[in-house]
Amino acid sequence: MSGPARGGIDLGGTKIQAIVVDSGHAVLGEARQPTPRDDGPEGVARAMAAALSEAAAAAGVETDALKGVGVGSPGEIETKSGVVSNAKNLPEWSGSFPLGDRLTEALGTMVAVGNDVGVATHAESELGAGRHHDSVLGVFWGTGVGGGIVLKGKDWHGRGSAGEIGHMVVKRGGARCPCGNRGCMEAYAGRSAMEAKARKLHAKGADTDLFKLMKEHDRPRLTSGIWERALDHGDPLAEKLLDRAVKALGAGIASAVNLLDPEVVILGGGLGVRFGERLGPEIERRMGKSLFDHDHPPDFEVAELGDLGGAIGASLLVV
Amino acid sequence: MSGPARGGIDLGGTKIQAIVVDSGHAVLGEARQPTPRDDGPEGVARAMAAALSEAAAAAGVETDALKGVGVGSPGEIETKSGVVSNAKNLPEWSGSFPLGDRLTEALGTMVAVGNDVGVATHAESELGAGRHHDSVLGVFWGTGVGGGIVLKGKDWHGRGSAGEIGHMVVKRGGARCPCGNRGCMEAYAGRSAMEAKARKLHAKGADTDLFKLMKEHDRPRLTSGIWERALDHGDPLAEKLLDRAVKALGAGIASAVNLLDPEVVILGGGLGVRFGERLGPEIERRMGKSLFDHDHPPDFEVAELGDLGGAIGASLLVV
Repeated sequence: MSGPARGGIDLGGTKIQAIVVDSGHAVLGEARQPTPRDDGPEGVARAMAAALSEAAAAAGVETDALKGVGVGSPGEIETKSGVVSNAKNLPEWSGSFPLGDRLTEALGTMVAVGNDVGVATHAESELGAGRHHDSVLGVFWGTGVGGGIVLKGKDWHGRGSAGEIGHMVVKRGGARCPCGNRGCMEAYAGRSAMEAKARKLHAKGADTDLFKLMKEHDRPRLTSGIWERALDHGDPLAEKLLDRAVKALGAGIASAVNLLDPEVVILGGGLGVRFGERLGPEIERRMGKSLFDHDHPPDFEVAELGDLGGAIGASLLVV
Repeated sequence: MSGPARGGIDLGGTKIQAIVVDSGHAVLGEARQPTPRDDGPEGVARAMAAALSEAAAAAGVETDALKGVGVGSPGEIETKSGVVSNAKNLPEWSGSFPLGDRLTEALGTMVAVGNDVGVATHAESELGAGRHHDSVLGVFWGTGVGGGIVLKGKDWHGRGSAGEIGHMVVKRGGARCPCGNRGCMEAYAGRSAMEAKARKLHAKGADTDLFKLMKEHDRPRLTSGIWERALDHGDPLAEKLLDRAVKALGAGIASAVNLLDPEVVILGGGLGVRFGERLGPEIERRMGKSLFDHDHPPDFEVAELGDLGGAIGASLLVV
C-alpha cells in the first residue's frame, strides 16, 4: 500500500455502503448498514460513522489515520461546508444538516461531501467504463433516475443541480412523476414510480406475481431483484412495465445525447447494473432511434464498478 | 477604429448576411443576399463572397485587408479545414464542400468556419444577453430549433454535434419531425414543421387566413412575419399552432435546464426574436412547470443582437 488510506461512503435511501481504499483505489475493507429511518439526519450520520469505522477495522486502520473520508449523498450539497439539504429520499431530511462536520467529529479526519450520482459518474469516468473517454454521461437507473456529466475530464455541476436526467420530459403532459411534474423519464423508469404503477394495475386486477414474490422473499418493496425474478418467470406486468421503462430511458438518454454529444453513455444504478446485460442493448437501440445524428451514436457501456462504484467515487473526493 | 477590421457571414437557408466590424465589434458595413437555390454549394459560396465584398465596400475596406472572415454555417463543420458536409437546408449540399478554401480564394484573406447556432450563442454570451453570465443555453427558434451551449465561458461542441436541442424528445412516439424522428421539440415548434401542419389542417378545412396573408404579402412560405400578422388578427389556427409550439419549447428547454443547469437561457432565432416579448413569458412559464428545481430557475432572456447576431458571432471566429 502506497500513501495513506482513504474512506468512501455512499449514502443511499435504503443502505449505507462504506469502504476504505489504498491510494491505488484497491478496497482494503468494506461494511454496509441499512439506512436508519427513525432518528432523522443524526441517526443517519451515526450509522454512517459506524459503517466507516467497521470498514476501517476490516482494513486494519484507525479512522483518524485516514487521509480523509468522502461522502456521496443525495439532496442539495454545499460542497465547501458539507451541509446537505432537502434529501427527499432520506428520513426527516427536508431541512439542512451539517453532515460533513458531524462525520468529522465522529471519525477524527477531514470529510468531503459530494452529490451521490456525481461521484459515481466521476468514479466510472476515472476508473471504470469511461476511463478511455473524455466526456461521459452517467445514467443511474435505480429508485429514481439520476445523471452525472463529465466534460473534458471534469465534473459539470452547473449552478449545483446539473444532471437531473431523470426529470427530462419524455412525454409532455404524461405520467405524474414522484417529483410532482408530468412526463419525466423517471415517472416511467424509476423503481419507485414503477412500483406505484404496478400496485395500481395489480389493484385493478392485472396479472402479476410481483407482490407475491416480494412477500416470499421478505422484501418491503419491489427491489431490482424482485423485478428480475418476475422477469425470469415471464411475468406479464413486469415485462410490460420494464418495456415502458426501457422506452422512456431510450428517449430520455437520446435527448441528453442530442444536446451534449458525449463520447460515452454509462448505465449504472441498481436496476442499470442488474439489467445492463439483459436490457442495455434494447435501451441502446431505443436511444439510437431518437438520435439526431444516427451515424455517430456514443459508446454505450454498463457501469463497471458495480455496487461499490458510489463509495469508490466518494473516496475520490479526498485529494 | 482600433486594429484591423474583420468580416462575418451568417449562412442561412434563405438568406446570407454579411458584415464587416471593427475590433470593438461595431458594424462598419453590411450586406444581404438571398441564398441561391440553383447552383449548389459553388453558387452559395459565390453569393457569400459577393455579400461580404459588398459589406467591405460599404465599410471602405478591401476584403484582402481584413484580418479574416468568420462564417456561421449549418451542417457538419470540420473547423480545421473549413469543410462543410450534409447541410440539409442548403441546395445540393448533402456531400462535403470546402467552403473555407473557396472563400479564402475569393476574398484573399483567412476564413474560419463554425456552426451557425454555435457562433450565434457565442455572440450572445460574449456581447449580448449572456454577457454577465458564465454558462449559457442558447435556443434559436426559427425554421428549425437549434441550440448552443457555453459552459464557463467556453463553447461546448461535444464530438462536434452538441446543441441539437430541437431534437430532444418532448413527446415519445409523437409528431414526425423533419429529421425523421418522432416527438422532437422541432416537430412542434420549428417554422417548417408548423407550416407543414398548418397546410395539412388548412386542407382539412381549418379556419385560417395564414395562406391568404402569405399570398397577399407575396411570400413563398409562412415567414415569422406572416405568423405575427395572423396572430395580430386573432387567427385561430395560428394561435393554436403557436400555443403548441410554446408548450413544446417550454418542455424541451426545461429538459435541457434540468440536465445542464445553466445560468441563463437565451431565446433567439427568427421566431424567437420576433415573438420574444409576446410569447417569451409564456415559454418561460411553461419551462418553469417542468423544472426539477422550481426554486432556482435560470434567467430567461431574449437575444439582444437581433438579426446580425449570427454574423457578429461568425466574426468572433477570427482571432
